[in-house]
Amino acid sequence: MPNRISQSTILLPSAPSILAYAAVAGKKEGEGPLREEFDLICDDTTFGEKTWEKAEMRMQMDAESRVLKKADLRPSDIDVVFAGDLLNQCISSAYSLRGLQIPYIGLYGACSTMAESLMLSSMFVDAGLANRAMAVTSSHFCTAERQFRFPLEYGGQRTPTAQWTATAAGSLIVGAHGEAPFVRGVCVGKIGDLGIKDLNNMGAAMAPAAADTLQTFLKDTKTSPQDYDRIFTGDLGQVGSDLLYELLSREGIDIKDRHDDCGLLLYDRETQDVHAGGSGCGCSAGVLCSHILKLVKNGTYENVLFMATGALMSPTSVQQGESIPGIAHLVHISRKGE
Amino acid sequence: MPNRISQSTILLPSAPSILAYAAVAGKKEGEGPLREEFDLICDDTTFGEKTWEKAEMRMQMDAESRVLKKADLRPSDIDVVFAGDLLNQCISSAYSLRGLQIPYIGLYGACSTMAESLMLSSMFVDAGLANRAMAVTSSHFCTAERQFRFPLEYGGQRTPTAQWTATAAGSLIVGAHGEAPFVRGVCVGKIGDLGIKDLNNMGAAMAPAAADTLQTFLKDTKTSPQDYDRIFTGDLGQVGSDLLYELLSREGIDIKDRHDDCGLLLYDRETQDVHAGGSGCGCSAGVLCSHILKLVKNGTYENVLFMATGALMSPTSVQQGESIPGIAHLVHISRKGE
Repeated sequence: MPNRISQSTILLPSAPSILAYAAVAGKKEGEGPLREEFDLICDDTTFGEKTWEKAEMRMQMDAESRVLKKADLRPSDIDVVFAGDLLNQCISSAYSLRGLQIPYIGLYGACSTMAESLMLSSMFVDAGLANRAMAVTSSHFCTAERQFRFPLEYGGQRTPTAQWTATAAGSLIVGAHGEAPFVRGVCVGKIGDLGIKDLNNMGAAMAPAAADTLQTFLKDTKTSPQDYDRIFTGDLGQVGSDLLYELLSREGIDIKDRHDDCGLLLYDRETQDVHAGGSGCGCSAGVLCSHILKLVKNGTYENVLFMATGALMSPTSVQQGESIPGIAHLVHISRKGE
Repeated sequence: MPNRISQSTILLPSAPSILAYAAVAGKKEGEGPLREEFDLICDDTTFGEKTWEKAEMRMQMDAESRVLKKADLRPSDIDVVFAGDLLNQCISSAYSLRGLQIPYIGLYGACSTMAESLMLSSMFVDAGLANRAMAVTSSHFCTAERQFRFPLEYGGQRTPTAQWTATAAGSLIVGAHGEAPFVRGVCVGKIGDLGIKDLNNMGAAMAPAAADTLQTFLKDTKTSPQDYDRIFTGDLGQVGSDLLYELLSREGIDIKDRHDDCGLLLYDRETQDVHAGGSGCGCSAGVLCSHILKLVKNGTYENVLFMATGALMSPTSVQQGESIPGIAHLVHISRKGE
């Protein structure tokens, strides 16, 4: 039975278990610091398909089939799947899942989708709305670039604040009974907007939402950053991370010694040309479903906060002069179930 | 506490109450059969804004402020809002809600969004995940037409199977304690795909999902169509409704004498040129949040099923030769709370 302690923060006393997780990565991501941790790296970024959109769909299907296999479950064992992605009308998710015949709840949370889908999966299991729930999302550099910025063939220059959309997918299954990692609580984000209008500076657009969600959760749970071994954001990149530190420091909160951003973990910025870091739904999904959950499972960390951020604009809204609203959902993941 | 009786069907024993509902409509919709039932009809389809996208956002804001006023609640009284729309990256929802500061869960369910958001709101309240939840969605003919089909100025011919995207928004608030209408159960839809590839025949693409969800719910609850005063689909239009009858008749189910489609209720097809009927998130939202809920509240109907359908394709997926997957979520709404 969920324990609501504020408008935003809900503790999950049954501590739903993350039964299995799987991450699939593209070539560039497979050459980065997490290369040993992915379940599958595809050197061919088309994933054997004829279009980039079909490639992204295929990558998500790979993540789904691998997580089912690792959990030793069939699609009919899953009560509900929460999924979404960056593509218009979330086609990667709808097409990747149409064959599995699992009750489907489509999400749109931009790059926050991994946190949104994990949060909802955990809430559903804790509340008895599902015995097992699946969360899945993805992004692909080539589909995102041509949808949000320029055709790849155009060879557009990238600004230093720009982030690199990750080619990756992550999937996990939450269940009522199982081993660590466990989900202990969530904080549902509110939309924040400090007026950033630069489509090439999304880290800055999302940082205010991340600061707000983290402050809300710490206040509601009467905890401090020191109560968590690590606080992971995704995907603020370098620019957004610096702004997050500044916003939090105004409230007397310092997370610098225990903060990592998924957009900075996925690539080696010295040797891989990704400017301010990685982004895209697949960035935090790929890092969570390989690196982070493994570190909790193997005991490196006891308690972590996973807070994926999303920028909720579209090219149309930006062209019409609108600023970029951001959101951040938070999930408290622990090695301890009680 | 929710009572899961199958993978898809969940009964809500606490019978959450729909505390208030509000519908906003455009000029054409305001000239149709439901003209007396909307909270607001705007004769200017720009809603006073400079772009169609901003107009849709404004229409959704009108629906949100009106439903809060009718429920005599402030945004801070709402624990969570579920919202989504048809526009790329669901900008109508994100921008309309950024000022309200309510924990936000973004959805993408295409034209099924009203059922998806009402379903999740009711599940959250029944499970104790929220005391009060808001659901909101919208569509606008001019934003949808230029995004999914042709620029308006092109004056493209419409096929007889085409549907007319409604300019409308609907919003409602679900709470733990209140009067009728009550939500008694839900059925979470699975993605169905019978291979329809015609972007101008979305009713046919969605009918298989509607048939599947309705059959599943009737079987799980051991009820028949005769146990419900009315079964509302949205938005199959005439072509999709006929296909739904055919698919159900193969299973020995006949709903013809008690079925209405929101896409056929919203317009007078004799005098309003909408071809196979209305569509868009705002179609079923506008009809639910004016006509249907009023008829349950005033006792005309004791029990209704509301089943909004969505077509989960994008222009890109259709151009790449993909068929159109469909989904339908079902909500059982009753005048009785037990």
